[in-house]
Amino acid sequence: MQPRLSLITLGVADLARARAFYEALGFKAGRASNDNVTFFPAGGVVLALFGRGALAEDATVADTPTGSAGTARGFAGIALAHNARSEADVDAALAEAVAAGGKLIKPAGKTFWGGYAGYFADPDGHLWEVAHNPYFTLDDGGRVVLDM
Amino acid sequence: MQPRLSLITLGVADLARARAFYEALGFKAGRASNDNVTFFPAGGVVLALFGRGALAEDATVADTPTGSAGTARGFAGIALAHNARSEADVDAALAEAVAAGGKLIKPAGKTFWGGYAGYFADPDGHLWEVAHNPYFTLDDGGRVVLDM
Repeated sequence: MQPRLSLITLGVADLARARAFYEALGFKAGRASNDNVTFFPAGGVVLALFGRGALAEDATVADTPTGSAGTARGFAGIALAHNARSEADVDAALAEAVAAGGKLIKPAGKTFWGGYAGYFADPDGHLWEVAHNPYFTLDDGGRVVLDM
Repeated sequence: MQPRLSLITLGVADLARARAFYEALGFKAGRASNDNVTFFPAGGVVLALFGRGALAEDATVADTPTGSAGTARGFAGIALAHNARSEADVDAALAEAVAAGGKLIKPAGKTFWGGYAGYFADPDGHLWEVAHNPYFTLDDGGRVVLDM
């Protein structure tokens, strides 16, 4: 796995409110954004906003303050993401994470948005999605480049 | 405020264990790392590991699953960070965040590590540190460049 944090998703209660807050701070949403998700280029990483419940559901964890699957302290409302160049790279990265002591939270598979992704948790329960998104461009260094 | 996520800190229970996990995935720690904190360049953003209790203490929030200061759902064990070029830029960014509807969690002030920083929470309680770290180099685009 290339050592790269591509994207971080913040779970939010009200997407319009959250988007307006970050826009007031100067963030500008990429064209991939829609009524369900916002993607902001954030200087080398993408900051995404997504419904908190939808994020928990996508990761197959319970949106509870304690004791949800794979997390010692409950769902943090945040997921880190590593974007890979291919489905095979997703499989390889998830296998590596598990071999290193991570916990497989959601096996890789086709996603509703047309990609391929799975989730693992690090030893402290921090959630990582490993994803191949065929609609995102990755630059030579592997960074997600959003169309603006 | 420049729309930039500079660094993300994961609160961890055992720094050595967490560092070993990320090193097994291919992350390499920068020279600023020590027995209390690890900094990994992560492709345009810095991934930091820090004691979970120490992180909560630094942000002046309670490390409880629910009801801690400024967060609707308790401490997530994660803090985002925006690194600014000067103390004045820290003050300006915090003021902007509050004007936009964020909550001031910790007013800016000198830090134990020789910098200047404060914290705000976004409308969903996600914690942001705004910091000037005189020991970090920022490139032309404002990204933190770690000495390796």
